[in-house]
Amino acid sequence: MLGFMGEFDLIETYFKRPPRHAVLGVGDDCALLAVKSGQQLAISSDMLVEGRHFLPTVNPAYLGHKALAVNLSDLAACGAQPKAFLLSLALPQVVPQWLSEFSKGMWALADAHHCDLIGGDTTRGPLNICITVLGEVPQAMALLRGGAKAGDDIYVSGHLGDARLALEVFRGTLSVPQAVFEAARLRMDKPTPRVELGLALRGLAHSAVDVSDGLLGDLQHILKASGVGAEIDTQQVLSTMACGQRSGLKPEDLLRLTLAGGDDYELVFTAPENQRQAIASASTSSATPVTRIGKITAHPHLSLLDNNGQSLPHSFESFDHFKTP
Amino acid sequence: MLGFMGEFDLIETYFKRPPRHAVLGVGDDCALLAVKSGQQLAISSDMLVEGRHFLPTVNPAYLGHKALAVNLSDLAACGAQPKAFLLSLALPQVVPQWLSEFSKGMWALADAHHCDLIGGDTTRGPLNICITVLGEVPQAMALLRGGAKAGDDIYVSGHLGDARLALEVFRGTLSVPQAVFEAARLRMDKPTPRVELGLALRGLAHSAVDVSDGLLGDLQHILKASGVGAEIDTQQVLSTMACGQRSGLKPEDLLRLTLAGGDDYELVFTAPENQRQAIASASTSSATPVTRIGKITAHPHLSLLDNNGQSLPHSFESFDHFKTP
Repeated sequence: MLGFMGEFDLIETYFKRPPRHAVLGVGDDCALLAVKSGQQLAISSDMLVEGRHFLPTVNPAYLGHKALAVNLSDLAACGAQPKAFLLSLALPQVVPQWLSEFSKGMWALADAHHCDLIGGDTTRGPLNICITVLGEVPQAMALLRGGAKAGDDIYVSGHLGDARLALEVFRGTLSVPQAVFEAARLRMDKPTPRVELGLALRGLAHSAVDVSDGLLGDLQHILKASGVGAEIDTQQVLSTMACGQRSGLKPEDLLRLTLAGGDDYELVFTAPENQRQAIASASTSSATPVTRIGKITAHPHLSLLDNNGQSLPHSFESFDHFKTP
Repeated sequence: MLGFMGEFDLIETYFKRPPRHAVLGVGDDCALLAVKSGQQLAISSDMLVEGRHFLPTVNPAYLGHKALAVNLSDLAACGAQPKAFLLSLALPQVVPQWLSEFSKGMWALADAHHCDLIGGDTTRGPLNICITVLGEVPQAMALLRGGAKAGDDIYVSGHLGDARLALEVFRGTLSVPQAVFEAARLRMDKPTPRVELGLALRGLAHSAVDVSDGLLGDLQHILKASGVGAEIDTQQVLSTMACGQRSGLKPEDLLRLTLAGGDDYELVFTAPENQRQAIASASTSSATPVTRIGKITAHPHLSLLDNNGQSLPHSFESFDHFKTP
């Protein structure tokens, strides 16, 4: 079939299923979605480009997973319940084996979150994957960037730095044992969107953002939007890295990977001190590790502290698609 | 600034304005949208790739217009009122002049339809524009492909074939006088989404689809979804072409351009005979020309008739992104 499959056959074969929530799914000019009374719609888009967001050698099933995962991560950061998504796909050629694997990876994650594929587009072109996700969040309950308050604890979910470690091994700038690389690579290729944690943080967290460009850069979005500063315990940040201790890497490399690595798809969020027990419960109920990494300060400055509470100099930049070559 | 503008500066400079309808626009992990009671959300995505959907020489202001227009055309085909859109953009490099023009073209059309830019993504990569539009349509009022009934009149809005004429002149396969080319080129570069007509057809049309891949191909979507056939008066179809008579082209070329040209972004729709007066009023109130081009038949076959009512042989294929080189 290679090269002879048309656009509509391709959609029919790999990307069409009856929707479970949506009023109308793939196959008309528009999809139709009903939104429950008292709920608002949370919407986000992410575009993934080969060589920039993923390597040409990536397992297509992982790529299908990741393209949806990075979008679900945005819903998670808002505390929204995923409902539906649209997939637009530019493909250099039609390779059934690739499409089959890609769609399997995507469907597995979509099914895990009961999220309908309701539309999109397919065209020929340099490989590009653009997904738009839609979720529901009760009115005035969305987690936003602008709500952090002085005195808030700062938390991060899961593991930081491992995805970037894998990328740097691919690039040849770092070298680690094979088992460490394999574990880190899975964190890069198959991130876990923290949807359940996001839902559990509704009404608890004052602010939240997802870590896609690196902890410090994404935390700055909270600080800027909230008009506050932060003190970060770098030892606690380092402790979140899954592969760090076994990697044999220098502490300054590990620090850079965790603070400014990017591609983590974890949540960084703030909550008042009197919610520590509730945050621990949210972590348990969502089966998501959570680490307290610092405090929000009134003074609008970001400080990094070592394990003696002394300020560290820092010059970590987060990932920027137009500043990074 | 060339090459030194970061992702967030770029969004701030060209793509951020306070939303008028949305609860929350650009700048957080998700946008937030409230949907009025009794309304459903109509959603569609289209991805535009350089060399496939537009020529590298295109005026960037027209491209900004067109990228949004082709999406609004999908809302129009459903009879939905545009509310908001997300723009994801992969750029080979940051060229302020290009971005300024592109965004101006996009904003002008967005403003004309009171449509908020509420989110999206920007990244470096081969030029790719992916827009997702969201509109509102009252419950059970959306115009769909599956509602055509035997005996329905078939109509098309505006002008068919002119956009493809311009493309073929660019490709060097057809030659026309310069004034004809300029007019046709504007139809290719700056299509008019038939939003007002779509709204006026709510409750009147039995079915509708937008003509993006060519009249016959897109009409087939209605016929297939409705389980019906059609008889098309090719002379009426030819009469819709704005540039046809002055082009000096052969009748068979004109027929091919109008029946299977693509890139028209007109609406083809069906309505019962007893609504002819109402359709004429919808055309007037929306300031959109409408031409009656045939009838829906019970027999599921598409016939093309000449001006004597005789059946014409036809082998016109519509545009397919994976079948067309």
